[in-house]
Amino acid sequence: MSSKRSDRRRFLKNGVALAGLAAGAMRSANGKALETSFDNYGKVDLPYGDRSHFDHTARMVEKEYGAGMSPSLVTPIQDLVGIITPGPLHYVQNHGYAPPDVDPDKHRLLIHGLVDRPLVFTLDELHRLPSVSRIHFLECGGNSNPKTKHTAKTVQETHGRTSCSEWTGVLMSVLLGESGVQKEASWIVVESADRVYTKSIPLAKATDDVLLAYGQNGEPVRPENGYPLKMVVPGWEGMANVKYVRRIKVVDGPYMDRWETTVQPSPRPDGKSRWFQFEQGAISVVTRPSGGHQLAGPGFYEITGLAWSGAGTIRRVEVSTDGGQSYKDAQLQEPVLRKAHTRFRFNWKWDGEEAVLQSRCTDDQGTVQPTMAEVAKVWNVSLEYFRVKDKGENMAAKHFNAIWPWKVTKDGSVHNALFT
Amino acid sequence: MSSKRSDRRRFLKNGVALAGLAAGAMRSANGKALETSFDNYGKVDLPYGDRSHFDHTARMVEKEYGAGMSPSLVTPIQDLVGIITPGPLHYVQNHGYAPPDVDPDKHRLLIHGLVDRPLVFTLDELHRLPSVSRIHFLECGGNSNPKTKHTAKTVQETHGRTSCSEWTGVLMSVLLGESGVQKEASWIVVESADRVYTKSIPLAKATDDVLLAYGQNGEPVRPENGYPLKMVVPGWEGMANVKYVRRIKVVDGPYMDRWETTVQPSPRPDGKSRWFQFEQGAISVVTRPSGGHQLAGPGFYEITGLAWSGAGTIRRVEVSTDGGQSYKDAQLQEPVLRKAHTRFRFNWKWDGEEAVLQSRCTDDQGTVQPTMAEVAKVWNVSLEYFRVKDKGENMAAKHFNAIWPWKVTKDGSVHNALFT
Repeated sequence: MSSKRSDRRRFLKNGVALAGLAAGAMRSANGKALETSFDNYGKVDLPYGDRSHFDHTARMVEKEYGAGMSPSLVTPIQDLVGIITPGPLHYVQNHGYAPPDVDPDKHRLLIHGLVDRPLVFTLDELHRLPSVSRIHFLECGGNSNPKTKHTAKTVQETHGRTSCSEWTGVLMSVLLGESGVQKEASWIVVESADRVYTKSIPLAKATDDVLLAYGQNGEPVRPENGYPLKMVVPGWEGMANVKYVRRIKVVDGPYMDRWETTVQPSPRPDGKSRWFQFEQGAISVVTRPSGGHQLAGPGFYEITGLAWSGAGTIRRVEVSTDGGQSYKDAQLQEPVLRKAHTRFRFNWKWDGEEAVLQSRCTDDQGTVQPTMAEVAKVWNVSLEYFRVKDKGENMAAKHFNAIWPWKVTKDGSVHNALFT
Repeated sequence: MSSKRSDRRRFLKNGVALAGLAAGAMRSANGKALETSFDNYGKVDLPYGDRSHFDHTARMVEKEYGAGMSPSLVTPIQDLVGIITPGPLHYVQNHGYAPPDVDPDKHRLLIHGLVDRPLVFTLDELHRLPSVSRIHFLECGGNSNPKTKHTAKTVQETHGRTSCSEWTGVLMSVLLGESGVQKEASWIVVESADRVYTKSIPLAKATDDVLLAYGQNGEPVRPENGYPLKMVVPGWEGMANVKYVRRIKVVDGPYMDRWETTVQPSPRPDGKSRWFQFEQGAISVVTRPSGGHQLAGPGFYEITGLAWSGAGTIRRVEVSTDGGQSYKDAQLQEPVLRKAHTRFRFNWKWDGEEAVLQSRCTDDQGTVQPTMAEVAKVWNVSLEYFRVKDKGENMAAKHFNAIWPWKVTKDGSVHNALFT
């Protein structure tokens, strides 16, 4: 037996680990327990398959905007495995508006403004251009906002405004190169097809790694994510990733539109606001076990979760089971990709005593995910600041990326422990 | 402007490339053409989203097995982008049987035979074990069978029995390690929950990289792919990847069951059969433009496709536009992963003359994808052998991995050109 396999065996051999399972196995080894595994043959989906009717993994409504509008929906990251978020479970933040019903044959993309050659593309024409596929996370700037989430029960509620997909499309640099950007240009403004949303992006970012995606996990972009054309701005807050893109105007400064001047700036504790704070910080969170889970009893458990950084690539994730008094390195699932969710795993034997599970990541810029106390120090606020709900959009704790603890109690139940 | 961006511009600047698009752009630059991009707001899917009703990407029935049975379904690889195949579009080969309707709470996995400790696991227990996520292709051993497909119209028909997913689950080595494999063991036999299928796998492969997957692209494995537990045998023909796994028996040789002794061996031209030919060869195919596509006219097109090898990692893909007289290197989309689909891209300016598009891959074992003539030589058959349909299962050309050409005619239509 190889040493590798012997290593893996230790999770059982070192004591109580899977003792309960093994006992069950001996009782059932005559095979009788296997007879009830199915009742009858299921249906066959032909052109486009469905999931099992036993699978109830679901987005949940995080915020309602009223009839005919689009609620905010958060991803069940406690139920997901690997790094790909299936399209049907991607988080949705639409400023309230339901997605427009865009006919791809009628859709056009216009590039104009400070360019030598204004261009209009059909989707068929975009499909002929040089393309790229990139696995990137998206994350709302308000994800894990402690002001609204410090009493939330599950990681879906606290951290579910992030998802990760394989995006395929055309680099913005290709499109702008075709149009010929004029030398006084410094920003682009990107408009959605329903004309309710625009976003200003610096030209340096636009020509770095921004893409106009028509594909998401192999198939066309989902309606709620921007069908038929979504701007993916890797590592930047969700609001930068304009959906149903129909127009790119090359300009000489940010446009300061209705969103950019109202809900999007991040109010600071001193009454001023941070404007155009785009990049998402280095962050990680344990997704299993997490709030709302129930451990079956003492023994072996794999602790797993996700880490990501808007600045680049995750280099390290550490896990603590004692509320941050000590950390050990978690295993990172290869491939570890730039500006993508990174799956981490950590073998743990629960002894039945109270435990506090949390993770801490480090990215390739050397940034270490901070504690809440460290964030408070930088922001020059007391810890109490993070549990006072504000009026309106509660944006005064945007871009909060602190370590988030989950408490395992002696009965095996798991609870949000940000303020315990 | 950066040199990188200047490079990318060349596909337009070097002549006719996108001339037609640019002219359209100038006419439409007043924006009026953009007014019809949508009619009204679409619906909002809450727990589990749906795709756009304009998106008709679909599997197609490749073979019928009769009422109540499961037809064979092939993946529309001509429409896919990137390397992830969405679950609803994964190819399906079920030996005719519809998937069982497995209740995950009742499902059990039994490991027994030549082991020290027989074990039974519930799915909840499997979820507690150390896990891995791996992006791997699956491919039917009969994919691109020239005997049945040399006159097929599309790449979905010729090569659509392959798909690629992010699989998450427990390594077989972990489970066998827990059970304690006895020294006389040399194979395992794996049984499906509907008890209509078993498969023998050598122990050396089982403890190398085989996993029991409960996750597919982030969510539970799809019913047609083996919900709730699928054995993924990386790089080996689809038939090895047992679905709805309920039993693993450790044994001292292959079981020679009904499938292994009837349809699964590959008949050879000399009347004998190859038994237990598991590994899929190094293969690539151009998916766009491919059979059934219609080019809009001369100009720039990205040629794209997929390459994969059961032996390891794709190192090189070359594309020919003159039927193999000359080849140039294609660009490989990073990350290039072991035993996974690899997306390749190649910039091409069509001059309006007849062209024959094809690709040739090389894997990290140094294996170069052969021509049909080279396969014929190794198999000691004439080319005619590959277009004679056999009676029964047409398995006499299994594991055919030759270069496959598509002819572009002067009118822009694209056609299967294996025998022209």
